[in-house]
Amino acid sequence: MKFVTFERTGGIERVGLFMDERYVIDLHEATNGMVPTTMLALLERYQDYHESISSISKNIPEQGVYIFQEVNIKAPLPNPKSLRDFYAFEQHVKTARQNRGLEMVPEWYEIPVFYFSNHLAIKGPNEEISRPKQCEWLDYELEIACIIGKEGKNIKTSEAEEYIFGYCIMNDWSARDSQRKEMAVGLGPAKGKDFATSIGPYIVTKDELESNREGKGYNLKMSAKVNGNLLSEGNFKDIYYSFAEMIERASEGVTLYPGEIIGSGTVGTGCILELGTEFHRWLEQGDEIELEITGLGKLKNKIAKK
Amino acid sequence: MKFVTFERTGGIERVGLFMDERYVIDLHEATNGMVPTTMLALLERYQDYHESISSISKNIPEQGVYIFQEVNIKAPLPNPKSLRDFYAFEQHVKTARQNRGLEMVPEWYEIPVFYFSNHLAIKGPNEEISRPKQCEWLDYELEIACIIGKEGKNIKTSEAEEYIFGYCIMNDWSARDSQRKEMAVGLGPAKGKDFATSIGPYIVTKDELESNREGKGYNLKMSAKVNGNLLSEGNFKDIYYSFAEMIERASEGVTLYPGEIIGSGTVGTGCILELGTEFHRWLEQGDEIELEITGLGKLKNKIAKK
Repeated sequence: MKFVTFERTGGIERVGLFMDERYVIDLHEATNGMVPTTMLALLERYQDYHESISSISKNIPEQGVYIFQEVNIKAPLPNPKSLRDFYAFEQHVKTARQNRGLEMVPEWYEIPVFYFSNHLAIKGPNEEISRPKQCEWLDYELEIACIIGKEGKNIKTSEAEEYIFGYCIMNDWSARDSQRKEMAVGLGPAKGKDFATSIGPYIVTKDELESNREGKGYNLKMSAKVNGNLLSEGNFKDIYYSFAEMIERASEGVTLYPGEIIGSGTVGTGCILELGTEFHRWLEQGDEIELEITGLGKLKNKIAKK
Repeated sequence: MKFVTFERTGGIERVGLFMDERYVIDLHEATNGMVPTTMLALLERYQDYHESISSISKNIPEQGVYIFQEVNIKAPLPNPKSLRDFYAFEQHVKTARQNRGLEMVPEWYEIPVFYFSNHLAIKGPNEEISRPKQCEWLDYELEIACIIGKEGKNIKTSEAEEYIFGYCIMNDWSARDSQRKEMAVGLGPAKGKDFATSIGPYIVTKDELESNREGKGYNLKMSAKVNGNLLSEGNFKDIYYSFAEMIERASEGVTLYPGEIIGSGTVGTGCILELGTEFHRWLEQGDEIELEITGLGKLKNKIAKK
């Protein structure tokens, strides 16, 4: 199933099911108010709603059906409880370090590491991204996000799958000049990443991807285009740490809650920092960035003209 | 005024006013339900409640008054919207770097830097802190936290004061071994800090501190004791960046919301990492850590016996 958050006429925002390209179903309306109105509330008690939603996905209900072209698609989880971003693709880390004249650090192979980012600055599909005033080096990052669907602590890799609700595309917008400066001080990234993170267009439940399992991830192509030009190409199957391993790490001594987001880190070639500015300039006003992952759709955003 | 969150008999949790050491006032009950039940909801519309609360603080109401000794004090803001921690005391940064054989970085003097920590792991006064399984080097950090009381974006230092609701003591518990490892990879700290952050015992509104203004902060002594032994001594007035400057930095291109927490970073001598383990061993099960800041009370926690 594919979950969206959408806005109907009159500004009413609802969690819904995306049914191919033709329509979306307002789950609150279709269940006479049984399913809550937001994705976060739905995730917090998903077990209670699973059966009804699954049945709706197979038999189009009589009420709550809207034409896809007539609604406005928002970030599928507009208010996640938190946002962790890992660093799980080896090629990205290697190349980004090489570009700075640095060798790989042995610790990278021992533990999956992450940082917390700003979960209060989530953007949705087609939303414009404002370049922060202090930023000249604006970049995108092509990532997969994993949505936590169940509360747990000290979760082992072997049991981590049951805590995963699904996946979506994530663009971890980056102000490389701010990031370079703050990381020289030895903290972060924070200011380099806090102004925007896009997710969407929908959250795909993990069962839909099952047949694509390969390596530590899934055989799903990942690509990024800027103004229609293909810049980044990778595959989810090349991830070095599985999301299950990242969940084990994140939940060591810490409770994870439904509605927290875990990012994969950038796939190899998945940002301008890694490709080099001789390959492509930093992003500018009016640029259109389209991320695509097989099965997870396309996530498009435009850099705002100020 | 001093705001607490407290638990009455029957597990009822309420935001309240702390009136010296004798009683607390349940603001929801005292205002016949006008003021909400949580500190976060109160902060989100504080202007609507300010007058009533201020009047209650001067004239003890007839209902909603509880004996302080008979209630259980929790973290004053148990569910902040986010947690940023800065690095604003020069002595701490200098000494911590010296201990690793590193010079000061010039960038530290140019911009106040921060990282996001886990706002879902807030602990209150007297709550036991569990040492994460993978941690042998457990440490405390003596800090001041600033509570945001008003929404804003691109806030200038000169106008930042109006976005500050108040202050409280903060202990940024740290797993130094995890932190060292993840920061070698070049991210974080995250796992080294995500298991617990204590705040409390109450949030003091900024007007109560006004007469102590000095330097970029306030003339308020800060100290930390472990099992009754004084280890750390500093003063809020020695801070290099004011909270107003930190707010300018945090809000550049980013909306700040009521209920977000901004930490100062550790005051000079304010943790074992800085003092050195020849001065004091890492924390162990059963240790009692008491942080005190003039005017902000005492925040005590004990390391749990597992």
